[in-house]
Amino acid sequence: MHRTRGERLMEYSIGVDIGGTKIAMAIVDQNGKVFYKNTYPTPNTTNLETMKLLNENVLNLIDIANQESMHLVSVGIGSAGQVDYENGKILSGTVNIKDWNNVDIRGFLSQTTKLPIYVDNDANTFVIAEHQLGGGKNVNDIISITLGTGIGGGVVTGGKVLRGAWGGAAELGHLTVKFDGPKCNCGSIGCIETYASGSGIANRMRERLQNVTSEKFSYYKEHPEKLTSKEVFEWYEHDFSEAKEVINLAITALAYGVVNVIHTFNPSTIIFGGGLAESNRWFITEVQKKVKEIGLSSLVKDVEIKVSELGYDAGLIGAAYQVWADK
Amino acid sequence: MHRTRGERLMEYSIGVDIGGTKIAMAIVDQNGKVFYKNTYPTPNTTNLETMKLLNENVLNLIDIANQESMHLVSVGIGSAGQVDYENGKILSGTVNIKDWNNVDIRGFLSQTTKLPIYVDNDANTFVIAEHQLGGGKNVNDIISITLGTGIGGGVVTGGKVLRGAWGGAAELGHLTVKFDGPKCNCGSIGCIETYASGSGIANRMRERLQNVTSEKFSYYKEHPEKLTSKEVFEWYEHDFSEAKEVINLAITALAYGVVNVIHTFNPSTIIFGGGLAESNRWFITEVQKKVKEIGLSSLVKDVEIKVSELGYDAGLIGAAYQVWADK
Repeated sequence: MHRTRGERLMEYSIGVDIGGTKIAMAIVDQNGKVFYKNTYPTPNTTNLETMKLLNENVLNLIDIANQESMHLVSVGIGSAGQVDYENGKILSGTVNIKDWNNVDIRGFLSQTTKLPIYVDNDANTFVIAEHQLGGGKNVNDIISITLGTGIGGGVVTGGKVLRGAWGGAAELGHLTVKFDGPKCNCGSIGCIETYASGSGIANRMRERLQNVTSEKFSYYKEHPEKLTSKEVFEWYEHDFSEAKEVINLAITALAYGVVNVIHTFNPSTIIFGGGLAESNRWFITEVQKKVKEIGLSSLVKDVEIKVSELGYDAGLIGAAYQVWADK
Repeated sequence: MHRTRGERLMEYSIGVDIGGTKIAMAIVDQNGKVFYKNTYPTPNTTNLETMKLLNENVLNLIDIANQESMHLVSVGIGSAGQVDYENGKILSGTVNIKDWNNVDIRGFLSQTTKLPIYVDNDANTFVIAEHQLGGGKNVNDIISITLGTGIGGGVVTGGKVLRGAWGGAAELGHLTVKFDGPKCNCGSIGCIETYASGSGIANRMRERLQNVTSEKFSYYKEHPEKLTSKEVFEWYEHDFSEAKEVINLAITALAYGVVNVIHTFNPSTIIFGGGLAESNRWFITEVQKKVKEIGLSSLVKDVEIKVSELGYDAGLIGAAYQVWADK
C-alpha cells in the first residue's frame, strides 16, 4: 500500500474534467499529483455517448488503481454548465456541451463504480484546486474567474466553497455591468461574459466589423464565424483602433465585474484562470489597475489579483479533490 | 433569575442600532423580545460625543438588567457605514454619520462594561434578525437588501453570515449595473444605490427637473434640496411621466442588482427592508416580476422575494442577537 511518511494511508481520487471540446481524466493523490491522465474529445452526439465514455474510462482507472494498490476514495467530476451539486446531476451544459441536460451522473456512476461520486461545476473545481494547492493556499476568502469561451466563477468564503441553496452559486460570468448593454446567451443583458469572454470579445468585434471598410479585416468580414478573440488580441497589438476599443471595453466591463465581487465578498485574493487569462497576462494587469481605481478603497486596496499558477490541470485536480475539500 | 420552561437560563443582550438620524437601544432576550427601548438623536458633532452617549446609556441598561436579574451576555452594535467586524471598529460612517471614522467601539465599551462587545454593519444585523426570527427563519441562504437613504446588503449563506476577509462583505448597494451610469457617492459609477435608494431616486429626479418647464415642479426646481423620494413616488401615483421614468429606472436597476446577487449566491429567499420598501410594497412586487423575467431561470424561478415582517426593530434585535447568531 502507498503510505505517507507518517504511515497515514495515502488516499487517491479519480478526477474528471468535462469541457466543451475535451474530457480529461486521471488519478490524483492528496498532494495533487496526477497519475495516468488521458484526454478524449467530448462526444457531440448524445449524453448517453458521453456517459458511456465516462463510465468505461473511470472503470479502467479503477482497475489500474486496484493493480497499483492505490486506496481510491471517490470519483470527482467537474463539468462545464450548470450542476446540481447536492444531487450530483448536470442540469444543463449551456451552449458549450451538446445534449448535456438533466444527466444523473451520480446515479449512474455510483452503481457501476461503488464509489462516492462528487459532481460540481468546473469553475468550482478550479477554485477548490487553487484553495487547496495553488495561489489561494492558506487563504480563506478567494474568488476565481476563468476566462475562456465563457466566464466561470468560483468562490471560497470563510474557507468553504460557496454553494447556495442547491449548488448553483457563483455564476459570476452572468453579472450584469450594463443593463442596457448587449444581449447575453443566458437571456439577460450586459453580463461580463458579453464583453470579456472569448466569445464576447469576438462578438463585440463582429459588430464593429460591419461598419469598417478597411481591407485588413476583409477576410473576417466575409467569414465572421472564423473570428476569435485571438485575432482581436493580435489586432490590439497592431494598434488597430476597432480592436483597441473592444479590448478596452472588455477591461472596463471585467473591472466593474471584479469590483462587484469584491464589494460583495471582501476577498483577500482573486485568481484568474482559463486560456484567455493565461495567454494575455497584461490584460489581467490592466483589469487590476482599473479595479484599484474604481472600487471602494477600503475593500479593493489590499486584494491580491493574479493569474493561476496551476495551469491547465487545475480543474481536473480540483474535481478529484472535492472529497477532501470540505474536511 | 429569568428561566425558560426547560429551566435553561434565559440570556439577554443589549442591542444598539446606530443610524444617521437616530440611535436606538434596548435589552433583547433570546426570543427577540425587546425591553426598555429608548431612542436618541444621533449627535452630529464629534465621535466622542456619540461614544459618550452610547457609553452612558449602555451602562444605564446594564444597571437595569442587574436590578431585574437579567443575565446579560453581551452588547451588540449595528452601525451604518463600514465596520471592521473582526476588530469591533467603525471604519467609516460614509456620508450618513458625521465624524464616525476609525472609532474603536469595542476597545472603549469593553473597558467600561466588562461585557463582550460585537460590532457589525446595520445591514448585517438586519439579516441576522431575519435569519433568526423573521422571514428567513429555518432558511440557510438569504439575502437582505435595505432601501433607505442608501442601500445596505446582508447575506446568510450556508446558515452563516457572510463576512469576508475582515467583515467588509455584502456592500450590495455598491453593485454596478451600468458602468456608464451616474456617479455614486462611493466614487464608483452606476451602483444600484444611484438608482434605487432614497437619495438616488431624488437625484435622478433632480436631473430631470432641470429640463422640465411644467409649473407643477416649480417649487422643487427652486428648492431641489427639499426633494425626496417620497415626492417622486407621489408623482408616480399621479402619472407624471418624469417621475414614472425615474421609478421605472429604479425598478430596472434594482432588478438587475437582485439578479446579480441571485446569480452569485443561489439564495432561497430575498428580504427587503428599510423605509422605502416598507412604504412602497408594490415597488418590490414590480422588482420581483422583472427579476423573474431577466434572470437565469434555474436560479430565479424558486427564489422567494418579500418585504420584512419584523419592521423597524429588526436592526436593533439583530444587533443584540450577534452573540447567539453564529452558535
